[in-house]
Amino acid sequence: MDYQSILNEIADEITPLLKDGKVADYIPALSMVDPNQFGMSITLFDGTQYSVGHSNTLFSIQSISKLFTFTLALKFHGFDLYKRIGHEPSGNPFNSLVQLEYEKGKPRNPFINAGAINVTDALINHYGDETSAYEEVLKFIRAIADEDSIRSNPIVAVSEMEHGYRNLALANLMKSFNNLDNNVLDVVQTYFNHCAVEMSTKMLSRAMLYLANHGVDPITGKSYITAQQAKRINAVMLTCGHYDASGDFAFHVGLPGKSGVGGGIVALIPKKMGIAVWSPGLNSNGNSLVGTMALELFTTKTGLSIF
Amino acid sequence: MDYQSILNEIADEITPLLKDGKVADYIPALSMVDPNQFGMSITLFDGTQYSVGHSNTLFSIQSISKLFTFTLALKFHGFDLYKRIGHEPSGNPFNSLVQLEYEKGKPRNPFINAGAINVTDALINHYGDETSAYEEVLKFIRAIADEDSIRSNPIVAVSEMEHGYRNLALANLMKSFNNLDNNVLDVVQTYFNHCAVEMSTKMLSRAMLYLANHGVDPITGKSYITAQQAKRINAVMLTCGHYDASGDFAFHVGLPGKSGVGGGIVALIPKKMGIAVWSPGLNSNGNSLVGTMALELFTTKTGLSIF
Amino acid sequence: MDYQSILNEIADEITPLLKDGKVADYIPALSMVDPNQFGMSITLFDGTQYSVGHSNTLFSIQSISKLFTFTLALKFHGFDLYKRIGHEPSGNPFNSLVQLEYEKGKPRNPFINAGAINVTDALINHYGDETSAYEEVLKFIRAIADEDSIRSNPIVAVSEMEHGYRNLALANLMKSFNNLDNNVLDVVQTYFNHCAVEMSTKMLSRAMLYLANHGVDPITGKSYITAQQAKRINAVMLTCGHYDASGDFAFHVGLPGKSGVGGGIVALIPKKMGIAVWSPGLNSNGNSLVGTMALELFTTKTGLSIF
Amino acid sequence: MDYQSILNEIADEITPLLKDGKVADYIPALSMVDPNQFGMSITLFDGTQYSVGHSNTLFSIQSISKLFTFTLALKFHGFDLYKRIGHEPSGNPFNSLVQLEYEKGKPRNPFINAGAINVTDALINHYGDETSAYEEVLKFIRAIADEDSIRSNPIVAVSEMEHGYRNLALANLMKSFNNLDNNVLDVVQTYFNHCAVEMSTKMLSRAMLYLANHGVDPITGKSYITAQQAKRINAVMLTCGHYDASGDFAFHVGLPGKSGVGGGIVALIPKKMGIAVWSPGLNSNGNSLVGTMALELFTTKTGLSIF
Repeated sequence: MDYQSILNEIADEITPLLKDGKVADYIPALSMVDPNQFGMSITLFDGTQYSVGHSNTLFSIQSISKLFTFTLALKFHGFDLYKRIGHEPSGNPFNSLVQLEYEKGKPRNPFINAGAINVTDALINHYGDETSAYEEVLKFIRAIADEDSIRSNPIVAVSEMEHGYRNLALANLMKSFNNLDNNVLDVVQTYFNHCAVEMSTKMLSRAMLYLANHGVDPITGKSYITAQQAKRINAVMLTCGHYDASGDFAFHVGLPGKSGVGGGIVALIPKKMGIAVWSPGLNSNGNSLVGTMALELFTTKTGLSIF
Repeated sequence: MDYQSILNEIADEITPLLKDGKVADYIPALSMVDPNQFGMSITLFDGTQYSVGHSNTLFSIQSISKLFTFTLALKFHGFDLYKRIGHEPSGNPFNSLVQLEYEKGKPRNPFINAGAINVTDALINHYGDETSAYEEVLKFIRAIADEDSIRSNPIVAVSEMEHGYRNLALANLMKSFNNLDNNVLDVVQTYFNHCAVEMSTKMLSRAMLYLANHGVDPITGKSYITAQQAKRINAVMLTCGHYDASGDFAFHVGLPGKSGVGGGIVALIPKKMGIAVWSPGLNSNGNSLVGTMALELFTTKTGLSIF
Repeated sequence: MDYQSILNEIADEITPLLKDGKVADYIPALSMVDPNQFGMSITLFDGTQYSVGHSNTLFSIQSISKLFTFTLALKFHGFDLYKRIGHEPSGNPFNSLVQLEYEKGKPRNPFINAGAINVTDALINHYGDETSAYEEVLKFIRAIADEDSIRSNPIVAVSEMEHGYRNLALANLMKSFNNLDNNVLDVVQTYFNHCAVEMSTKMLSRAMLYLANHGVDPITGKSYITAQQAKRINAVMLTCGHYDASGDFAFHVGLPGKSGVGGGIVALIPKKMGIAVWSPGLNSNGNSLVGTMALELFTTKTGLSIF
Repeated sequence: MDYQSILNEIADEITPLLKDGKVADYIPALSMVDPNQFGMSITLFDGTQYSVGHSNTLFSIQSISKLFTFTLALKFHGFDLYKRIGHEPSGNPFNSLVQLEYEKGKPRNPFINAGAINVTDALINHYGDETSAYEEVLKFIRAIADEDSIRSNPIVAVSEMEHGYRNLALANLMKSFNNLDNNVLDVVQTYFNHCAVEMSTKMLSRAMLYLANHGVDPITGKSYITAQQAKRINAVMLTCGHYDASGDFAFHVGLPGKSGVGGGIVALIPKKMGIAVWSPGLNSNGNSLVGTMALELFTTKTGLSIF
């Protein structure tokens, strides 16, 4: 298939829509991003990459980091992780406290904020302290992206914390239900440090290969998790990867994916490729408006879908 | 692959668990079913069938009927259907009123009870009256199962209505929000008539082929819906097919599926086969306990999964 | 105290506000009422009445009827009534299903719709059938108002039923929890028949005397309920009488009271008088805008308050 | 009336029930209190006191402090206070986050935890910093109780903070909605400092006189708030003073009152007296089991009730 032509077509078709999204404005560092940007990349199992647009521009991966922390927590804690976090869609916005209270402090899944904060807590347990937890996750991201320059933006991380009252509310609520082991402020700051990691679509599409290939990096041959764990992470991505629009994404795109408020979305086609798209303007559900559209165009044009 | 051996192995492995499920007891007709039964069938695209256990026994398909009414409503109303019904997971039990009230009478998806009642209302609009709506759905089920003997059990249908106060509450609530066009009692009775259809796992696995094959029956060549519609129905099955345990089903089984309180579950492997399993004992989520387990064993043993 | 002058002052002061309310428009019979009307009456224990405005005009008492059915249900069932209905404020709109579902079909109090429908069901149990229940309640209202001409408006009663889907949802939900004994349609129709009773402020202020005088009509000497029951009904009026604005009414008016969507409000000053006010324009909580204001002016001007 | 005999009778009648309550155990300092204690006091407008039992024993006033902080906040901010806090019953437990989220960070009333934390924030605004806010509230409590020895127990205050995750969640949630002006930790610690104030029933019954006498201390003649403010505080006590059992308290006791998790309850009879009762064993709603019962006996035996 001529992937490059398809990406070029998509870039053309989405251009008129760039102005329709709304850049996240809850922290200054994100609100200043130029909305008029779009990048998209795919990486095949042999390492071939196809890209279009701003595919080398670094952006804040935000909630896409939840995918990587979940991978490590599942690797180290296995099924025990499900004593503290579920794997059901929430049917509520990503930062809702209502369900967390009704369900006695156990987050619905690892991709809503409460769940990802809880995953971070589990990683701090595993690595011993929050600094190690932060660094090991970063090391993992560099490994799967095969790119040592990746770092977290400290300005974004600090700014998130200064506006992070709702996440602090979620963490304190879990703590009140004895479902958080470490210091609330440390856990939330570590969570924000991971959200502030910056990557390009080229890096992210490369980083998805281990999930597309049942846990094994198809280029380096390195095995990160079991085939079953990889399939299950993909299932959670499909059912819970886009908050309250997860059904919509499955319906229109038909691929496992995970979005971030920085405008990035990652997706994958099992046994075939990793995909990443970025455009900072968001739709009303907090997912990249043009990014979602681009992925729908990609599955339509290629006929690739898990269904 | 030696499907027959795999089915035989599964039947052996699940036997000790048959006693753990709990048969639905909200109406007499269902509560009298012997829990000690299990049947499983797969149908390939060339019509080859493999079965084990009580695969010819007729049982009440119940909510599996929602899949067939949704297919017809999507066929006739297209995207207009989404003005009255969403396609997001609900994160709530299948008959909850809470979300329906918060979301002003618009059901979250076509597979929760409110959604299926609404789909029935849309079909009555299309076919002109409730009798035609009932008969045309039955005719469709007979066509896709290639089996003219299929009928609805009137004792079950009447009994459901006598105990259907919660469904009447859902329907009246939608009516109060002007999201139900026809007479409440007629719509709910028609919905129950479809739930009371009786089929075997052999029939049901056959009936799934059009969804596994992008809308076209691979045996007869008859086209029912577009490829995109079929893929989208599969996506809704994956994200919403098992009520509040949809994430769990995706996580453990990894296939689009739909369960019914009569103990049946249908599933499919895109471009490969239709699957049906039946065992009347339910788990705490209202899905067949042994049926869910059998499907997990099937994907593990065959390695077949959409992820 | 010169009550007549105070009533006259109030009538002057509220005149400019008559245009601010919004007449109930969910049924034609109510929506056609001229909003530019206001009446207010008080009745002392010796039978002296003071009135101003449209104090002889008949209007639909609507939810004020809940006070009278609650009185009879408490009289006949005593504390057993609290097995089926609570006496806590709901913190939700008058017709919400959410709390009713969370609390398994037991209404929070007798003044929200679900509670009053449940009270009607209890009265049908007591009187044997719905016709008797309807007639005996009407007889009771005529007795306490000392006015035999009082009747229910059949056009309103039928029209309510035709638009009563939400109340049917509430009743069906209670029935699904086995907290409704009689036929759903019969119970709801009887409830609407009582809501459609028509009275004037003169009649209503007279009808409140038994509650102001600890259960005994101070004029006829007839005892209807015990002193403790009367005090407790007053307590429920104070905490729950105005739906989600009960706290606001207690805060501003400081008297036990009950409002209806027809624009009427009744209140009482223990050991002193019955009060009724009517003006059909409603505020955003569904209580008479000018009526609430008139009662606040009354307690401010007279200094009469239970606090 | 022979108040002393009535109090003695009450003490006799409640003795067998002392063992039925459950002492608060969420912090060590409270859990170690001997449940077998009971004290009750009334103070008349001329200063006469009647007491029975452990009426000189100091106990943690806990949520009764909300009454005093609300008084000061209403005094200084007037109606502006209602921009940040409502005055409606919540229909939910005292520390629920659900309603706070649905109502966008505006607490339902000043007596649920979120409301009292918000009141504390308003007082810090008024007094300039948290130390002054803490000290001025203490000074006010000493003045209305006419007792300079009153102090806050620092062990309780610190212990509350160490277990105060849910309150921190509430405060952070309000902060996320821009409905909290000061530093979250400072506000919550100041709130806990007030909760840790220790008083006896003699002191508390004396401290209620200004509320029973329309804002003016009947003994010293000192005016604290306006008559209307005092009446309105009483109304809020009646509708919201006992969390999710406020209706029950109004129903059975029929007086404005406020309870605390330390086992104390204050109440008042307008124009007559202040009342305080203490017994550390709680009922399932978190109110003193024996204390509630003692107050019901008091109103039954004296016939005193606002209704």
